[in-house]
Amino acid sequence: MGTLPSNVRIREVGPRDGFQNEPETIPTAEKIRLVDMLSATGLRRIEVTSFVRPAVIPQLSDAEQVLAGVQRREGVAFSILIPNERGLERALALRERFDEVNVFVSASETHNRKNVNRSIEESLEGLERTLVSAREAGLRCEGVISTSFGCPYEGEVPQDRVFEIAERLAAEGCAEIGFGDTTGMANPRQVGEFFAAARERLGGVELTAHFHNTRGQGLANVLAALEQGVDSFESSFGELGGCPVPPGATGNIASEDLVSMLHEMGIETGIDLPALVEASREAQQALGRPLGSHVLRAGPVDWHRGA
Amino acid sequence: MGTLPSNVRIREVGPRDGFQNEPETIPTAEKIRLVDMLSATGLRRIEVTSFVRPAVIPQLSDAEQVLAGVQRREGVAFSILIPNERGLERALALRERFDEVNVFVSASETHNRKNVNRSIEESLEGLERTLVSAREAGLRCEGVISTSFGCPYEGEVPQDRVFEIAERLAAEGCAEIGFGDTTGMANPRQVGEFFAAARERLGGVELTAHFHNTRGQGLANVLAALEQGVDSFESSFGELGGCPVPPGATGNIASEDLVSMLHEMGIETGIDLPALVEASREAQQALGRPLGSHVLRAGPVDWHRGA
Repeated sequence: MGTLPSNVRIREVGPRDGFQNEPETIPTAEKIRLVDMLSATGLRRIEVTSFVRPAVIPQLSDAEQVLAGVQRREGVAFSILIPNERGLERALALRERFDEVNVFVSASETHNRKNVNRSIEESLEGLERTLVSAREAGLRCEGVISTSFGCPYEGEVPQDRVFEIAERLAAEGCAEIGFGDTTGMANPRQVGEFFAAARERLGGVELTAHFHNTRGQGLANVLAALEQGVDSFESSFGELGGCPVPPGATGNIASEDLVSMLHEMGIETGIDLPALVEASREAQQALGRPLGSHVLRAGPVDWHRGA
Repeated sequence: MGTLPSNVRIREVGPRDGFQNEPETIPTAEKIRLVDMLSATGLRRIEVTSFVRPAVIPQLSDAEQVLAGVQRREGVAFSILIPNERGLERALALRERFDEVNVFVSASETHNRKNVNRSIEESLEGLERTLVSAREAGLRCEGVISTSFGCPYEGEVPQDRVFEIAERLAAEGCAEIGFGDTTGMANPRQVGEFFAAARERLGGVELTAHFHNTRGQGLANVLAALEQGVDSFESSFGELGGCPVPPGATGNIASEDLVSMLHEMGIETGIDLPALVEASREAQQALGRPLGSHVLRAGPVDWHRGA
């Protein structure tokens, strides 16, 4: 299996990607409580909320209150999703409450148009202005490319197109590029080849893998990425959220499943797994339905070891 | 990721491992219908039932009727689980209805004792007689070693102990050894190291991996095994069955999740994935509850490709 990274960075995206996909809006105080629990687990990166228009995603219309309410903790970077300059302006009123922004664009024209009603080129041009403003405000920027490994409408997405968008985002100021497997179409062979090529082509940028467990392959794709030296991942506690396409499908890989696998493999994350499982259990309680996470149900491996 | 096998053999274990773990016994006619559906998918190996004492596993007390009722199909090998000589005697009355037997022993003393109330040594001695009789009847024999990657009671299970048991089973006539991750404690690094060593030590025997998805790592473990040249796997349609320890945990990896990943990676199985998903959908209907399989919910990747 070659040399694997000895340390991995994980960005917890549940408070944004998870909470926005819940049919019933989670009360603001509950969101704050859960983010505070996550901040105490040793996670160093948390995507706290999104400044999209409340009309578009009412579930996150309390972005200001959440951001103002969560505890700031030494060593935990908060990021927020910014759709455009207007969203950034709203967020900048709370500038001292966060450290990073992420912006997104799809690698598939059809998906991008369905998602934001713009061409990829229009999106990239709009993001350029947003990224300039964000960097002027001293924010670190991540560019997320959705459907990087396949599109439910267009099918295969050429690697080169993804890399071109990544280079563009990097040139516009993104220090980190996240590659999203938005509807869980990636397979490990593809992921291995993708990141081998990405490493060659995108030097100097942090490469982050964002896999979904739509078809049960999420952690297999993580393994394939690790084998190519990828050491930055995004995941969601409890397996919350993710793209609801196809309907009924599960979304993001569960943070605790990811952390459990990494720790069992001897790869450090700095995260206290039982504390993370506890946060997911609280979320499950708050949402009143069983969440998809495996480790939440089964417990970490060492809870069932003799010692 | 190195060279991966171009073809993989899959043994479907749902009709035994799945059906025996259902709290309500599935009607015999339903079992037969589902096995017939599975036989028509291109699967070449199906574990049809078990000849344990009906008092122990009442869910499979119709082993004779099931075995007598299922259609025999060219190229599909039927196997049955045999706990001991008495079970084999019962099965041999239907000798022409199956091709293979599998026997099992645990690599953990505690687990073996809890499971069959014997020491490992006592199990192996008993199995020796059973295997002699089975081979005399012209049957191919698989020896399954449960808790090969960890035991929920004893914790770590030394690789050497597993290999010693495997050598013993091979010497007693098993052409194939299945390594079971009974409670989903295996991780990909361990699996890679395990099969690298197993290949060295157990030449001439077919090595089969039987992973559980208890902690979401099932397919990641498959990938790690593939990378060591393992080309024989066991899985369960719909994600049925598996060990109910810890309580509430999921068990076997879903056959359709496994097949989906392999096909997407360009690895052949000979299995018609939509037909397999259809069999799982029928099982889900028959059992009246949502099954854990991901591909059953989301559909294969190519159903969501543009072409």
